[in-house]
Amino acid sequence: MPVEIKDIEAARELLAGVITRTPTLHDGRMSETIHANAWVKAECLQKSGSFKIRGAYNKISRLSDEEKQRGVITASAGNHAQGVGLAAKLHGIRATIVLPEFAPLTKIMATRALGAEVIMHGQSFDEAVAYSRGLGEERGLTYVHAFDDDHVIAGQGTIGFEIAEDLPNANVIVVPIGGGGVCSGVAIAAKHLLPGVKVYGVQAKNVASMRVSIEAGEPIEVPHQSTIADGIAIKRPAERTLNIIREYVDEIVEVTEEEIAAAIYHLAQNTRLVVEGAGAAGAAALLAGRIKVASDDTVCSVLCGGNIDGNLLARVIEQVLVRNGRYIILRILVPDRPGSLAGMLKIVAEEHANVIEVYHQRAIWLAPLGSVGIEVILEVRDAEHGEQVHQRLTDAGYYAEHVKGDW
Amino acid sequence: MPVEIKDIEAARELLAGVITRTPTLHDGRMSETIHANAWVKAECLQKSGSFKIRGAYNKISRLSDEEKQRGVITASAGNHAQGVGLAAKLHGIRATIVLPEFAPLTKIMATRALGAEVIMHGQSFDEAVAYSRGLGEERGLTYVHAFDDDHVIAGQGTIGFEIAEDLPNANVIVVPIGGGGVCSGVAIAAKHLLPGVKVYGVQAKNVASMRVSIEAGEPIEVPHQSTIADGIAIKRPAERTLNIIREYVDEIVEVTEEEIAAAIYHLAQNTRLVVEGAGAAGAAALLAGRIKVASDDTVCSVLCGGNIDGNLLARVIEQVLVRNGRYIILRILVPDRPGSLAGMLKIVAEEHANVIEVYHQRAIWLAPLGSVGIEVILEVRDAEHGEQVHQRLTDAGYYAEHVKGDW
Repeated sequence: MPVEIKDIEAARELLAGVITRTPTLHDGRMSETIHANAWVKAECLQKSGSFKIRGAYNKISRLSDEEKQRGVITASAGNHAQGVGLAAKLHGIRATIVLPEFAPLTKIMATRALGAEVIMHGQSFDEAVAYSRGLGEERGLTYVHAFDDDHVIAGQGTIGFEIAEDLPNANVIVVPIGGGGVCSGVAIAAKHLLPGVKVYGVQAKNVASMRVSIEAGEPIEVPHQSTIADGIAIKRPAERTLNIIREYVDEIVEVTEEEIAAAIYHLAQNTRLVVEGAGAAGAAALLAGRIKVASDDTVCSVLCGGNIDGNLLARVIEQVLVRNGRYIILRILVPDRPGSLAGMLKIVAEEHANVIEVYHQRAIWLAPLGSVGIEVILEVRDAEHGEQVHQRLTDAGYYAEHVKGDW
Repeated sequence: MPVEIKDIEAARELLAGVITRTPTLHDGRMSETIHANAWVKAECLQKSGSFKIRGAYNKISRLSDEEKQRGVITASAGNHAQGVGLAAKLHGIRATIVLPEFAPLTKIMATRALGAEVIMHGQSFDEAVAYSRGLGEERGLTYVHAFDDDHVIAGQGTIGFEIAEDLPNANVIVVPIGGGGVCSGVAIAAKHLLPGVKVYGVQAKNVASMRVSIEAGEPIEVPHQSTIADGIAIKRPAERTLNIIREYVDEIVEVTEEEIAAAIYHLAQNTRLVVEGAGAAGAAALLAGRIKVASDDTVCSVLCGGNIDGNLLARVIEQVLVRNGRYIILRILVPDRPGSLAGMLKIVAEEHANVIEVYHQRAIWLAPLGSVGIEVILEVRDAEHGEQVHQRLTDAGYYAEHVKGDW
């Protein structure tokens, strides 16, 4: 039985009062950038940090008392683990979650904190899945699939109802695609509730299995490449989601790692939301102009999740600041005599640039005899200010090279 | 005329449909930490990035047509500038904003983007205020004070109405205090709408003028010290806010810079919200245990604003990661012969620690002859893992010192 709008409506009733009714927020800066009326569905504020609780809770609600008593199992290295863990906890039933051995400790701890039994097994995600399937059969546990399940898809689809409620005139909805669960559910709901709406699915270019699968007419496995959108790095969709997406989704677009990073930065800086790579993919597609919108369009991008490690978030912000010209790296030659470094830094100070790091090393570039190479990282107001500092140093007679890091 | 509940109610009607109805979100992790039912009022998601639009819009709405036609003026280095700029834009009137000359370019650009006339004047905030007062008189502009104004206070108080609506059983409300405008308004609303509620005001220890002023019975100016909560770094409150806070606020507590940083990190990592230092002060007081709560308390902390520069946010996150033991800095002595560095790093790799930076320099600590000093920055899973890596290196015969940076 394929997922119908009434299934999503039923899930919505079940979830009322259980999940957070996440807000749909206007994004002024994105509206300016894309020249349309841009909104975001802040699902990163959901319990467990992502939409996964919706599908997992709906699925578990449908189990028989006997099935509930035996408990559930799944394999996941990400948000699904926490969604199932929390849904099981809320139902007061046992959850067993198999994580691959390389899973980050933060995920392990977060899943354990929800009371789930966490088993570390397998060198790859596929090995963890195979093991969890076997263990589930052995122990009589119900397997909760992350997307290849009608109840899970119906649960995720409740996001579409909330968008339609908050933005009855939305005519463009953008949803990230990994296995396709949330995109399937949202697309079904949106197409029923918002006449004339267009639904776009977004994948990370590095692991883009859905479009090739749709073109091939069957699930195709693509090679795995590293991506900061690890939450949607699914090598192979399910036939179930493939069929729904083919029917309900208007277009699938892909975004690069740089575009995802820029979107994470935009959302943190302008929308004040912490969004993980997978969750930011839809916003990335809009901000990068990969989806064409008209100026009277009301666009809503689903920010699926916010489970990003602090160190990755900090690195993304810093990298985007460098790309946006807020940090510059200069390699400078100064005469090898006392006071040279101070003299050069005095010019930097006069230009109100802020020194972040200084490397004063003879070995940098094999500086000519009589000179030393200095690498400075400066915080500046913007790219123009950075160029001004560079120019001042050049005018003062220093050889200065602006390192752009285009590798 | 002091601010009454009916003034706040009137402001609420005026603001409906103009501002974002910001969500009140459950904070599961904070609830666990403080052993109570913890919620946050996510005012960082407000238009212009802070609550300031509420008061400024309410104030401007009350002006006569003639006053509106002449326009408004204010001095601000922060969120108030953007609040007034946006409120004026929404009313279609002219705003002039005086910023001190040291104001960050991001603030200048954000204020200009709202269509306000931005004037840079003064070496200090006080100089900017004095200049803006004079210019306002000269040009016949109405001065919009950031907190010493009943209409402004009534506007900020609408936050209290929304909290009471979302959490009718809230019995502890925590609000940051700078000049005291938002705390005054919220306290008046809360004490009228939530019987038995306790209201706490929170100041940054580095600029804590309110408690001494209350003790003195009049506004006292305290010296300015640098704080990451720059939005509440007000050296001297107004008599108006002082009187309201004395009457309606139960207790004022102070938080350190470290506590504010830890709260910014908590909110980004667990609550998925980007909150600036001033906005995080209330959460900081709760997380640091500076406010005593009981396990059946329903606590709501107002997150006033989210205008934090990306580079500061990244630095705060990284610093807290170091304090939490997710990054460690080790100073290690290795024999001065080929292969030593590789051998040491092999042990680090075997322990699954991730190398962030390596400094291989003879000058580090004036290493004894025959040795070189190496400083490594490692990413580890947690403090325990860090200690384990440290121990492995020591066991392998390396002198290794864990640099803690306690200055």
